Amino acid sequence: MTSKVHKNRRRFLQQAALGSVLATGAMSLPIVSRSESSEFPDSLPEWMREPGGDFSNYGQPSTHEQQVIRWISANPDAPGNGVSWTPLHDLQGTITPNGLHYERHHNGVPKIDPNKHILLIDGLVEQPLQFSVESLMRYPMESRICFIECGGNSNSGWRSTPIQAKAGYAHGLVSNTEWTGVPVKLLLEEAGIKKQALWVIAEGADAAGLNISIPLEKLLDDALLALYQNGERIRPENGYPMRLVLPGWEGVLNVKWLRQLRLVEEPIMSRDETAQYTELQTDGSARQFTFINEAKSLITSPSLGMMLPDSPGIYQISGLAWSGRGKISRVEISTDGGESWTDAELHGPILDKAFTRFSLAWHWQGEYAVLQSRATDETGYVQPTREALVSQRGRYGFFHYNAIVSWEITEEGDINHVYGL
Amino acid sequence: MTSKVHKNRRRFLQQAALGSVLATGAMSLPIVSRSESSEFPDSLPEWMREPGGDFSNYGQPSTHEQQVIRWISANPDAPGNGVSWTPLHDLQGTITPNGLHYERHHNGVPKIDPNKHILLIDGLVEQPLQFSVESLMRYPMESRICFIECGGNSNSGWRSTPIQAKAGYAHGLVSNTEWTGVPVKLLLEEAGIKKQALWVIAEGADAAGLNISIPLEKLLDDALLALYQNGERIRPENGYPMRLVLPGWEGVLNVKWLRQLRLVEEPIMSRDETAQYTELQTDGSARQFTFINEAKSLITSPSLGMMLPDSPGIYQISGLAWSGRGKISRVEISTDGGESWTDAELHGPILDKAFTRFSLAWHWQGEYAVLQSRATDETGYVQPTREALVSQRGRYGFFHYNAIVSWEITEEGDINHVYGL
Repeated sequence: MTSKVHKNRRRFLQQAALGSVLATGAMSLPIVSRSESSEFPDSLPEWMREPGGDFSNYGQPSTHEQQVIRWISANPDAPGNGVSWTPLHDLQGTITPNGLHYERHHNGVPKIDPNKHILLIDGLVEQPLQFSVESLMRYPMESRICFIECGGNSNSGWRSTPIQAKAGYAHGLVSNTEWTGVPVKLLLEEAGIKKQALWVIAEGADAAGLNISIPLEKLLDDALLALYQNGERIRPENGYPMRLVLPGWEGVLNVKWLRQLRLVEEPIMSRDETAQYTELQTDGSARQFTFINEAKSLITSPSLGMMLPDSPGIYQISGLAWSGRGKISRVEISTDGGESWTDAELHGPILDKAFTRFSLAWHWQGEYAVLQSRATDETGYVQPTREALVSQRGRYGFFHYNAIVSWEITEEGDINHVYGL
Repeated sequence: MTSKVHKNRRRFLQQAALGSVLATGAMSLPIVSRSESSEFPDSLPEWMREPGGDFSNYGQPSTHEQQVIRWISANPDAPGNGVSWTPLHDLQGTITPNGLHYERHHNGVPKIDPNKHILLIDGLVEQPLQFSVESLMRYPMESRICFIECGGNSNSGWRSTPIQAKAGYAHGLVSNTEWTGVPVKLLLEEAGIKKQALWVIAEGADAAGLNISIPLEKLLDDALLALYQNGERIRPENGYPMRLVLPGWEGVLNVKWLRQLRLVEEPIMSRDETAQYTELQTDGSARQFTFINEAKSLITSPSLGMMLPDSPGIYQISGLAWSGRGKISRVEISTDGGESWTDAELHGPILDKAFTRFSLAWHWQGEYAVLQSRATDETGYVQPTREALVSQRGRYGFFHYNAIVSWEITEEGDINHVYGL
């Protein structure tokens, strides 16, 4: 072992001359963490000596992965009001498994009988229509893989000191799955849209009766009345038996447990578009109807809660980027707190308004480092620094925080959340 | 209600002149199964009258969907030997949720401690190497959405009479998920491939010690050592802590619980490439090493176990197509048992060696019908009729059944499995 470590260190020092960040072609990278031996370390492992467990009708994660969970932050006085976070730091690829899709509930998860649930389309329509779940199953369906992100995701970033939480537990009110359902446009056009209609009030069948105003134009564009998530029926906490999916628009508009779409001339000015999901501006006006989740990225590995071993080596910087305006066109990575940048590899398929995984090999030489990622989307929008975002939005910022996230690597290999520029 | 039904019937009869199969543009289709009313049928539903349920660390499907399960067919004398089927008839979109990915075990699901599991690469290499799970996490990873299909999928099709099983329970030894892991090529090249090496023997850490020979070329092409499935760590029944994924190649080669890759000159002639997963030919030779799953398609809706209501109307024919040789380029649908064909809509993204969802709107006018789908892949290969497949492969056929599937619709709207031409 000793000689090999020395050999790798030699190779390592030779390559260090190329710079500390390398593109992930990776074929020539020495990876030092495996051992060299042609013998298995032990006799036949115990699990090969007796028949394994049974088949299952519906599978579950390994008991060794029980720490991979949604972290729940609910109001102790109203336990159905809160959020649970997708553990992005524990995941890989781009799909969020259904059991780990983030939750945001205002008054808990309703236990809806799908045989009794009705969707009503009314208001400024030629003919109000009601749909049972069964009837909706007869309609043409479409699928799309897209992210849904809560408008309040990452809002700890507005605090004056950086929160020391794992990547997913500070930024994981965003998840990415395949949604399948009926284009909302089909249903609205079947009801017949009156000329005066400009907005649609969507209401959920939870105890909060959450309602919110959505521009009709978005519902006629790419909105889905989703019935399925990653192939199976939507789960209760994600809107069973049906929800709105508005690709790229903030989570609260993607109304779960949808029971009504009412076409109207003007927004309803409900609680969740006035008291909540808005921001008071210094001039006394409100920043309101901020529908779109702007481009954002996050390094999920290495990130807080992990540790680099007490020796230099090669690490794969890996993370996620997404934009509510379209496809991700570029992600750059800095290891020196934004002084210099290198393009990361984007892993395909790069889909519209969906997670894109990026990666870059990094030679860590034991030095202090600050890792950052910066996303650009196909409109040319570039993810801002925290300084720029705070300067633009001021001290009343609370929603739609999408600034560059900085992970500090100490010389000991510890990882902390810091505020970069 | 009455007048509307009449109006729809009139429109329906007008459109019927266009032919019984229509492309899914769908905007102008009358969908007759919803009702017209501006009043909810009942008072506020019970689930809106009290706070809903709590957040959960890891979600589960609705209790109303408990019938959506993998169907288990295991050997009563050796319960760890068998299969469980993905309920394709209950799913939509293209992603298979992890809990419903099909299973094929030879001696049950081993309970592997990931901290003790070792992958050994040895044989014709310059330097044998051992990898712990932890060490593999340091390597560059790639993701791909692809199907895995058991070589024995659909093999009831070889029987002389058509099996009356639901679509997924006859054809659901195929599933489609996002796999993430380390390109096998990286690991083999790090060990150093000797010139004589042409094959690799892969062995699993289950009690069957399943081993099988794989051409080295495939492992150097697009094989993944997968650690994640749909974002989270692979589940026990799908190979936890790691498995091979060989896109487009039959399931048994995608060795689960992988513990060894041994580079050799010739195949090992193990049980699962001689006694099993081969077919005796009429001339006494064996059809062996039939790695690739050829193009195939299946109408999942309407399909056996569903029923068309006792009235004519519009139905969305929907299904899945896939090919082990690349992308699906075309799916045609027949409603008259193969007499005439119409192109279905292919839903994007159309990915290499992955499920592609297709659909087509169909005006059922109450007549007897036989629904079929026929896939073509980008190599030009066309899914064969059952007659052609049986004629080509003869009475010894058992694996790799990919013929066109026929669903008979009776005048009463019942659905049966029949053999078409």
